[in-house]
Amino acid sequence: MQHKPFSDEYFMQIAINEAKKAFENDEVPVGAIVVLNNQVIAKAYNQTEILNDPTAHAEMLAITSANQFLGSKYLTDARLYVTLEPCIMCSGAIFWSKISALIYGASDIKNGFMKIENNLNQNITLSHPKLIIKGGVLEEEASILMKDFFKKKRKF
Amino acid sequence: MQHKPFSDEYFMQIAINEAKKAFENDEVPVGAIVVLNNQVIAKAYNQTEILNDPTAHAEMLAITSANQFLGSKYLTDARLYVTLEPCIMCSGAIFWSKISALIYGASDIKNGFMKIENNLNQNITLSHPKLIIKGGVLEEEASILMKDFFKKKRKF
Repeated sequence: MQHKPFSDEYFMQIAINEAKKAFENDEVPVGAIVVLNNQVIAKAYNQTEILNDPTAHAEMLAITSANQFLGSKYLTDARLYVTLEPCIMCSGAIFWSKISALIYGASDIKNGFMKIENNLNQNITLSHPKLIIKGGVLEEEASILMKDFFKKKRKF
Repeated sequence: MQHKPFSDEYFMQIAINEAKKAFENDEVPVGAIVVLNNQVIAKAYNQTEILNDPTAHAEMLAITSANQFLGSKYLTDARLYVTLEPCIMCSGAIFWSKISALIYGASDIKNGFMKIENNLNQNITLSHPKLIIKGGVLEEEASILMKDFFKKKRKF
């Protein structure tokens, strides 16, 4: 499907294409991109299995890659698009990177950071208070990819 | 000071030596090691500045390095020694790595994960429920290193 250029759906579709690469490589299908001034400056997909590294989530790799592209520790004004709600670790990386907006696709009831965020006192937040958070973008497509993956896994 | 071999203080001293390397390289002085069967299988210090990477905390680098050493995504039965209370991101990495114990030196009131952990409902935890957590090991030495670093920074 064609999405309006530079819309959230347009960028999420690029993240979903990354997630599909993870799927093809037998990794949990999560993809992430970093966008600055409507330009994709980093793309990544989950590589925990191939790298034997539980920290190699799509978001972590995309953030580090964007840092390298910009030669900067901070990603102020950049946006992160990720097909699945980030986990606690990735929410911490988003905090440190000073990224301005997080847009995600499917929710992750079990390991997503929102469960923690919603259970904290109002004075304490997991995310940077200025972070813009939007979920549910192309949610169905991102969810189906995850469901198909785990269905395939159960067959073995 | 000599510590009893294989005691928590003995291993924390090795982590502090890593933190000193960070200090010398003008990085926030945090060091971490991973220990399995009383053998140090990974050592690392904070490298966020030199790598231009906000995710390059000592714990993250030590965990990834231990994964590479073992050729495994999981660090079951291993212990992580870190000179400073881990942040949210690193607590997430500790969760995913399935490491068995976290031993830290100084507390981090501002960015440490314990603030979040202590503010959650009893049903929800940030850490793996089986994770053994012990803080305050060689706390003074780890704290002094941090204070000296920020004192030096303020002079410029």
